Amino acid sequence: MAVLAIDIGGTKCAVALTDASGDILTSEVAPTPSGGDAETLWRALWSLIETTVGAEPVDGVGVGCGGPMTWPDGVVAPLNMPGWRDGFPVVARLRERFPGVPVRIHNDAIALAAAEHWKGAGQGVDDMIGMVVSTGVGGGLILGGRLINGGTGNAGHIGHIVVDPAGPPCGCGGNGCLEAVARGPALAAWAVEQGWVPGTPAAGPVNPELSEREAAALYRENARATGRQLATDAAAGDQIAVAAMNRAGWALGLAIASATHLCDVDLVTIGGGLSQSGPLLFEPLEETLRTHARMGFSSRVRVVPAALGQEAGLIGAAALIVGGDRYWSP
Amino acid sequence: MAVLAIDIGGTKCAVALTDASGDILTSEVAPTPSGGDAETLWRALWSLIETTVGAEPVDGVGVGCGGPMTWPDGVVAPLNMPGWRDGFPVVARLRERFPGVPVRIHNDAIALAAAEHWKGAGQGVDDMIGMVVSTGVGGGLILGGRLINGGTGNAGHIGHIVVDPAGPPCGCGGNGCLEAVARGPALAAWAVEQGWVPGTPAAGPVNPELSEREAAALYRENARATGRQLATDAAAGDQIAVAAMNRAGWALGLAIASATHLCDVDLVTIGGGLSQSGPLLFEPLEETLRTHARMGFSSRVRVVPAALGQEAGLIGAAALIVGGDRYWSP
Repeated sequence: MAVLAIDIGGTKCAVALTDASGDILTSEVAPTPSGGDAETLWRALWSLIETTVGAEPVDGVGVGCGGPMTWPDGVVAPLNMPGWRDGFPVVARLRERFPGVPVRIHNDAIALAAAEHWKGAGQGVDDMIGMVVSTGVGGGLILGGRLINGGTGNAGHIGHIVVDPAGPPCGCGGNGCLEAVARGPALAAWAVEQGWVPGTPAAGPVNPELSEREAAALYRENARATGRQLATDAAAGDQIAVAAMNRAGWALGLAIASATHLCDVDLVTIGGGLSQSGPLLFEPLEETLRTHARMGFSSRVRVVPAALGQEAGLIGAAALIVGGDRYWSP
Repeated sequence: MAVLAIDIGGTKCAVALTDASGDILTSEVAPTPSGGDAETLWRALWSLIETTVGAEPVDGVGVGCGGPMTWPDGVVAPLNMPGWRDGFPVVARLRERFPGVPVRIHNDAIALAAAEHWKGAGQGVDDMIGMVVSTGVGGGLILGGRLINGGTGNAGHIGHIVVDPAGPPCGCGGNGCLEAVARGPALAAWAVEQGWVPGTPAAGPVNPELSEREAAALYRENARATGRQLATDAAAGDQIAVAAMNRAGWALGLAIASATHLCDVDLVTIGGGLSQSGPLLFEPLEETLRTHARMGFSSRVRVVPAALGQEAGLIGAAALIVGGDRYWSP
């Protein structure tokens, strides 16, 4: 059995063939054409698929894609793919090319949660949330050993738990959401407001032969106010960057406490760029979580880094096909 | 088929026989002995059961009981039943008396959610939360048409979503939980702090022949700073009481927005004393909810009063037996 797994993102698209146990047999990655119209984006994806599949017969197609989308019919309008912003029928197109086999899609964060449950840090856990903390904050919900869809396939939006009713505006139209506080760009913007200068010598000189002043100039030239830079600077001891990571940990801890009370999960996995920061993120997260999750059942929850790497999206896409009704019950 | 349905609360216990469709054939209610020890409480319950069941054979026993409890084995330690606070094996006791038939238990708020889904305002809805707003704030979660248990049978604790990180301490050990803000006694305490005098003439004289002063004295004698009185005074136009209801609506709206984003529910039902307040509660709730639940999927959520009355707890208890795996999948 061969499964075609597709992971569609605003920066890159990845395509793989997997076997029935989700092991990747062959895969291809290519940058997503920026600024392409709907058909340009489709042709680029199709070319990647053809290269990967070749003459191999395919028994099913699983897709993870940035939201929003209509689900389960899979008309996608990813926020970061302008060419598809008006809605592109990616599932219908794939069905034309792969007639007679199942074609299934879910939000990319949900695919990552399915992957962590199936083959990652959540193996053997029946009740968990798989999170991604990066440019956005997303997630997927597994309860009773099954992926939860919700009424419209949108369950898992933990990034829009309100953590600070008086907090910053959110892209969703509300304000004070976890995502509005803890997404990389929001954290970086908050740090800049507090006086953070990305890549200042507090991070230590790149070249010990440079004077402090030369090093500072070099840093400023190369540094950008991004979540990644913020994590780098926090690791190097920049106090404002550390405060920003504390802020992210606080917001995550609050949202995870609330989610644990509502869903009685045993485990939360956190993937995405910011989760690479280790104790700088997880320590303040734990501190807030343990302050709020104090009932017998909720104090049990564990929060761990996601275990799967770059291929998690492909593994989650394959899970929609070969995971049985655990991951697909529209 | 006859089902024995049992609803155990700190104030009263109710017992019924229902048929396979959950219709109540006969029922009995009695006050819960206050201050009784473990066996006194059990004897009072057992006496109620014997009166109800008589010589009728029973095909299953469903129980709703205040939490916390170990689940599904049903050693209960209800917060408001001191005699059982150390843990009482109510399911094991019932199994001794009703050998060979299923004996099943859930938290009382979860039983109410099951009842609303089965026969109340949630009929035909696959994804919903059934809430109770009263002395506490509880709930139960139905997703994909099935009652969600969570890892320990505690899913549905919406009352412990954090709505105000700087808010009042909560009985759970945390602070700023929905329950800490919106439970009746907390609202009443808040209103008293703001200067509320329960049952003041702003509520209008009980007897138009009394002078304003006589009426005021009469009110003060009879009024107590309870959630019920607060709702009465708010309905009569007392501005502090109205502000307290606004506060409850705000907290509920925030928690429901967060829960809707996480679980993608279509419907939230609200029962319990405070839900009787109509627009005084639901208008501020809607205002806050619509401010925060703005994504395509979350703006669909509807919030309605629970449809079932006093018998909801018994219907939910019966659902554990006759609802198939929709309501029982430990």
